[in-house]
Amino acid sequence: MTRAQLFDQIQKKSSYLCIGLDTDLTKIPKHLLTAHDPVFEFNKQIIDATHQFCVAYKPNIAFYEALGPKGWESLQKTLEYIPSDIFTIADAKRGDIGNTSSLYAKAFFEHLNFDSITVAPYMGEDSVKPFFYKDKWVILLAHTSNPGSNDFQLIESVVTGRKLYEEIILKSRQWASPDQLMYVVGATQAEKMEKIRALAPDHFFLVPGIGAQGGDLEMVSKYGMNKHCGLLVNSARSIIYASVENDFARRAAEEARRLKNEMEKHLSARL
Amino acid sequence: MTRAQLFDQIQKKSSYLCIGLDTDLTKIPKHLLTAHDPVFEFNKQIIDATHQFCVAYKPNIAFYEALGPKGWESLQKTLEYIPSDIFTIADAKRGDIGNTSSLYAKAFFEHLNFDSITVAPYMGEDSVKPFFYKDKWVILLAHTSNPGSNDFQLIESVVTGRKLYEEIILKSRQWASPDQLMYVVGATQAEKMEKIRALAPDHFFLVPGIGAQGGDLEMVSKYGMNKHCGLLVNSARSIIYASVENDFARRAAEEARRLKNEMEKHLSARL
Repeated sequence: MTRAQLFDQIQKKSSYLCIGLDTDLTKIPKHLLTAHDPVFEFNKQIIDATHQFCVAYKPNIAFYEALGPKGWESLQKTLEYIPSDIFTIADAKRGDIGNTSSLYAKAFFEHLNFDSITVAPYMGEDSVKPFFYKDKWVILLAHTSNPGSNDFQLIESVVTGRKLYEEIILKSRQWASPDQLMYVVGATQAEKMEKIRALAPDHFFLVPGIGAQGGDLEMVSKYGMNKHCGLLVNSARSIIYASVENDFARRAAEEARRLKNEMEKHLSARL
Repeated sequence: MTRAQLFDQIQKKSSYLCIGLDTDLTKIPKHLLTAHDPVFEFNKQIIDATHQFCVAYKPNIAFYEALGPKGWESLQKTLEYIPSDIFTIADAKRGDIGNTSSLYAKAFFEHLNFDSITVAPYMGEDSVKPFFYKDKWVILLAHTSNPGSNDFQLIESVVTGRKLYEEIILKSRQWASPDQLMYVVGATQAEKMEKIRALAPDHFFLVPGIGAQGGDLEMVSKYGMNKHCGLLVNSARSIIYASVENDFARRAAEEARRLKNEMEKHLSARL
């Protein structure tokens, strides 16, 4: 999916919501456990209920990998089920030496046909570049939203005075255009959002941390939005586990609609 | 496997060789492609031929993931086939927020029963800690051997004057003892090995980059070894693809034996 197509979807749906498919057998409604493939059955019903309110789905690969070969089959079926006008993100946080990254790219872009993958920057340019495919996207970790993000990401360079995550944005900007590269920017760091937006004015940011992880949609939207929106805001648990009873899909839809309605306001205020 | 058991194996075999199982369908001998599971068949013959010369096997997870569900089955069979006195490393370079890292830990430690996993440090403490299991190991990326390792790993902190990878070693040392934590230290940085060893005197280092990636076993051994060896030196392609003909297993054994004989010399000189 191209940047123009993604922006088009955002305008059409008045939403920049990404729904995290962190599907966990211990958390899904009990009545689904007798299905042939409970993970896919849950995802299918979530997708049916929410697709009109979101522009992206983000399966968290760990949840599928933890189930072994069956998990990969559930993931594959989920990818095939997601409507083709919705952007898909493999939240995999991969990154390895060049020939290894090439194989991860093959797994997620060719076999599973994801539109994008999250990538860890620590090993540098040759670990990231194999993920640049035509019409596919790298979503590079810049500043994450977890407590440990302060351990190393804030270290300031003695040469430039910039923080590590700022160095990563400035260097990686040279590796690909905003048509192929997005950044993960944690919502709990929304006060820094303005500064990060100045470093990467045209790039999309994937913002985790709305919902169960905390965060502030209004602040993120105010400081993070650019003229092509430039935001995908993720929510997982607060939507997909809004209820763990028979009404889970309806309740997921309600929560997704609520976030979409908020986003519609921010979009019309800014674009 | 405990640190004492690992050292015991190293002494028994006079070897600190780790063999990388980077098994690639496009590179294995053609006659294996008709087997029911060519990847497992190749690994099995490599393990049969080389297990007496090495103390660890390191499947590179990307190579299996690129094959989809079948790849996970080949990986599972390979893990079951590796003799139980040989240390196993999931070269996965995972690392994510806490609940996600817990699931990766479950996948590699509980389902696949690996002894250890390589972990990326960028997201900090809460992304690494879920991988600390009893008798299991985290192998944290410190200084890697690829060209891109210079992009961010060498950034010096304005506060401490230390490089990023040194900060990572010093901070992560507080998270677990040398009985649960190793570091990836790239062989092409062997001149830095002495300094890194001073930062982590008791930890095992997993050293990639011997063989096809270049590197220098003698220098690594001279500056990296501690009183319990403290080194696992990996070689993949130069062993497993020593030949791509019918004699591949015999040729792999020859190359593994050659490296083991070198290591025996270094061990007797230092221990």
